[in-house]
Amino acid sequence: MEILNEQQTVSSVSVITSEALMDHWQGHRRLTRRTIEAFPEEHFYTFSIGGMRSFAELIMELIGIAAPGVRGAVTGNWQTDEGLSLDHSSIAPATKGEMLVLWDKVTDQMNEIWPAMKPERFQEVDSAFGMYENSVINSVLYFIDNEIHHRGQAYVYLRALGVEPPAFWDR
Amino acid sequence: MEILNEQQTVSSVSVITSEALMDHWQGHRRLTRRTIEAFPEEHFYTFSIGGMRSFAELIMELIGIAAPGVRGAVTGNWQTDEGLSLDHSSIAPATKGEMLVLWDKVTDQMNEIWPAMKPERFQEVDSAFGMYENSVINSVLYFIDNEIHHRGQAYVYLRALGVEPPAFWDR
Repeated sequence: MEILNEQQTVSSVSVITSEALMDHWQGHRRLTRRTIEAFPEEHFYTFSIGGMRSFAELIMELIGIAAPGVRGAVTGNWQTDEGLSLDHSSIAPATKGEMLVLWDKVTDQMNEIWPAMKPERFQEVDSAFGMYENSVINSVLYFIDNEIHHRGQAYVYLRALGVEPPAFWDR
Repeated sequence: MEILNEQQTVSSVSVITSEALMDHWQGHRRLTRRTIEAFPEEHFYTFSIGGMRSFAELIMELIGIAAPGVRGAVTGNWQTDEGLSLDHSSIAPATKGEMLVLWDKVTDQMNEIWPAMKPERFQEVDSAFGMYENSVINSVLYFIDNEIHHRGQAYVYLRALGVEPPAFWDR
């Protein structure tokens, strides 16, 4: 009975669970997906402000990080997927529709890999993608934050193009 | 001895601690502070793309959320600070320098309030600012994400103005 009470306490005091963290990320990814859908196809690969990358290039960066990032967090294997690279030289799918198919494939990969996440991994220090030494939780938060950052930039692109972005609060 | 081992396990398996979550937010706030510093004073209150708010107005929103948001998360009292409101009608300080002084005051307030955070509050459902019903952890993550989102937009403003934004990874 003592042990049961201990466990109940443990469960009720966690700031966030591993599962909730992935739900949080996937909520952001659903919003990013809606931002891709809202983006005019004729500007998706070319529109830029101040010499910045196109939204398609930013999305390819996010795709290059997402599933390999989750795999690395869970397994310590940070190899990037075939055809995807972190230096943004990956070949983007030729249409927005194909990009969305790739996006959804990544969503499934993330959901398949994540349940194997061991709780003790979060505080381990590891070099994300062989380069960025940090605790695994900080790396995962970085991947999510990087997506929010670039999607925020795409909101400015959309406003500049006269298009209303999707609601930020809707996940 | 049994209980000590239980506690050690609890500590080592947490995804993120309350203290680390605030460190994460304050790291983002340090980056936002550098973004304010980098922003040309003559454009801070006026520059806009696509009808969006100026960076000064976005910063006032963040300031209106930060300390009152932390206080609400910790205490359940979501009253906004005197002179600050969530509808962005707050009067911004007249200079960037004064804005930075206000920013730093908010930083201190957040750091003063947060240590009283009770772990069980994170999973409680509460109406943030009397309006947004969510678990407290989700509200806190929302406040952080909202800052990343708007700062990402300010990066586009900076690029459009020919100014190099601060490094995203530097916190």
